[in-house]
Amino acid sequence: MISDQNSKKALELHKKLKGMISVTGKIKNLRSNEIKLVYTPGVAAVCEEIYRHPEKKYTLTSKGNNVAIVTDGTRILGLGDIGPYAALPVMEGKAVLYKEFGGISAFPICLNTTKKDEIISTIKAIEPVFGAINLEDIESPKVMEISDELEKSLPIPIFHDDRHGTSVVVLSALLNSLKLTKKQLSKIRVVVAGAGSAGYGICKLLAASDCKNILVTDSDGIIYKGRSGNMNKYKKELGDITNPKKEKGSLHDALKNADVLVGVSGKKNLITFEMIKTMNRDPIVFALTNPDPEIKPDMAKAAGAKIVATGSYLYPNKVNNALVFPHLMRAILDKKINKITMDLLLVTAIALAKTVSDRDLHYDNIIPNMYDKKIQKNIINAISKLYQK
Amino acid sequence: MISDQNSKKALELHKKLKGMISVTGKIKNLRSNEIKLVYTPGVAAVCEEIYRHPEKKYTLTSKGNNVAIVTDGTRILGLGDIGPYAALPVMEGKAVLYKEFGGISAFPICLNTTKKDEIISTIKAIEPVFGAINLEDIESPKVMEISDELEKSLPIPIFHDDRHGTSVVVLSALLNSLKLTKKQLSKIRVVVAGAGSAGYGICKLLAASDCKNILVTDSDGIIYKGRSGNMNKYKKELGDITNPKKEKGSLHDALKNADVLVGVSGKKNLITFEMIKTMNRDPIVFALTNPDPEIKPDMAKAAGAKIVATGSYLYPNKVNNALVFPHLMRAILDKKINKITMDLLLVTAIALAKTVSDRDLHYDNIIPNMYDKKIQKNIINAISKLYQK
Repeated sequence: MISDQNSKKALELHKKLKGMISVTGKIKNLRSNEIKLVYTPGVAAVCEEIYRHPEKKYTLTSKGNNVAIVTDGTRILGLGDIGPYAALPVMEGKAVLYKEFGGISAFPICLNTTKKDEIISTIKAIEPVFGAINLEDIESPKVMEISDELEKSLPIPIFHDDRHGTSVVVLSALLNSLKLTKKQLSKIRVVVAGAGSAGYGICKLLAASDCKNILVTDSDGIIYKGRSGNMNKYKKELGDITNPKKEKGSLHDALKNADVLVGVSGKKNLITFEMIKTMNRDPIVFALTNPDPEIKPDMAKAAGAKIVATGSYLYPNKVNNALVFPHLMRAILDKKINKITMDLLLVTAIALAKTVSDRDLHYDNIIPNMYDKKIQKNIINAISKLYQK
Repeated sequence: MISDQNSKKALELHKKLKGMISVTGKIKNLRSNEIKLVYTPGVAAVCEEIYRHPEKKYTLTSKGNNVAIVTDGTRILGLGDIGPYAALPVMEGKAVLYKEFGGISAFPICLNTTKKDEIISTIKAIEPVFGAINLEDIESPKVMEISDELEKSLPIPIFHDDRHGTSVVVLSALLNSLKLTKKQLSKIRVVVAGAGSAGYGICKLLAASDCKNILVTDSDGIIYKGRSGNMNKYKKELGDITNPKKEKGSLHDALKNADVLVGVSGKKNLITFEMIKTMNRDPIVFALTNPDPEIKPDMAKAAGAKIVATGSYLYPNKVNNALVFPHLMRAILDKKINKITMDLLLVTAIALAKTVSDRDLHYDNIIPNMYDKKIQKNIINAISKLYQK
């Protein structure tokens, strides 16, 4: 999917700049009298002030605007387990977007270990410097267990972009798609193909909204309450909150009469022409696996899909987390939100959806453009209202 | 020592800027076609390239210019054990100096643990992002054990500024002082008051140079081979490499007929007028404890000291690590030096000393000014020559 041309340009750019990020001082061309304030001896007064009033770590240091982008390199983009060194360019890229779109100071932490307990203890150890943790591209379900444990023990928020960010952008795109196809969230049948971090997050957020008929599938087919094989704690939870009729069967079975397919399976060409054919009228197909989607958009359209979205820039309707994470994190840091709740994700999704005006909304424009300045404004306003309640 | 005026200004500045550092992208105002190179999908080619050719992590990412400034907050400046949150402003200040004087991207890692094994495992875990580790303001001898263990197990250099940086700036100041007082390194008697990280580093470097008569003291007096009380692995090593005549006694005893006193004791007013009085002709007194030196410069001068230096900006001859660490680290990163050796420190000290021209050299100007552009040039040239051998 990536053209040779783009690969070549990307390699050249990274080589020329030696990576994409740098830590910089907020004062440039430091004068001698400023060194005395930034460093010894003046800095001692700042240290003492924080020692006496610990809450001032948020006003006197960079902590409140620092985010750690933490990965163990086990599940990088479409590349899989490539380790912490090869993972670094993705984390740097993410840091660049955090800064560019959110004004956030994000630093990559690529870990030399894939062990759950070591990942947890490392993140706990480095917490003092950060206002939030962004877990990134760590294999599931390990990453959920890490997130759960950190949420319990750390005073700062644990944002899991593959789960939280993806769920927001998907719900947002879905709300606008339903508007166009004149369907209601409470009445549709949604199939989520994939029960990893993204699938889990999407099901949780859909279930927390008005969506009542969700089916989620993994490589063993539809997940249902009481299924015995290939389950874990998180899939069990999905069995509880989805599939009210305890349907069994394959992904193909699930898609019969479904209104919406959300593909977050990691498997290219998972969805066939025939599967789309069996869906309800005006199918909505989000084939979000990167870089190669579960079904090619033209094939999905040929099979009758009314709205098609992917995670790729090659097609319209790019449903990408980058629309969410810089702005949501900006609000999390500014409001000192220490837990990612369903309410928080829900209002963010609605705010993002509403950023596309009714006039601009059409089948090939269900989600705003990344450069739309209204995204951040709308998300922050919505979250501010939520926290004023 | 810190005036209320300076403290107030430092607090105001840190509050106004919310800390002193930020992670920034190397491209500002990212365009849409650049996002495709910096982030998905183009970045995947960069990841794959590093996965196939691991050594390219140094040319395609920021790793080679990233330094972790790691502390557990146990021995901050003159403040002591104030914890990781209150330690952050010092680490930020250091990061600012690294950038300003060395062009280095340094990020603070303030640890939520003071346990040796946890500090070691955390640093091992975060290594992939960094080209070097700077251990900072961690209590001794724990910090030496950490450094030793990391040197054995990590592929990147472990720079311990309190030890390595201090030893270089002290030797440098000493070389110029000896030139002025017309004494020879091989013939002088040097007393180092303090056997922590700084004292250990200074003794090691002096012993590795031509200095043959070194005495080092701690709270129990002179350290000698075979002393039984208040010893540890590192003090035992000092017993082996210093004090050839196995002298015993107090700091006062040590100073009799000494040519040089280097105070790195952490104790203000440790040195008295009477002690200086008993030193050899033209005493050289470096009272380097911050913010309050072991003896006030005017008292030392009154007692006969020919050259007095402190670590404070209030007096002439400011012997401060900031003269060394940005430049030495620049060379370490550029030359991919993976171990801090005595030879490396020695050539750095000599290069720094030579930066003060004979014309400029006088009793109150034994060390260059931080803003002297020749410092970096001289240090890098000297190190380049060493590694060409």
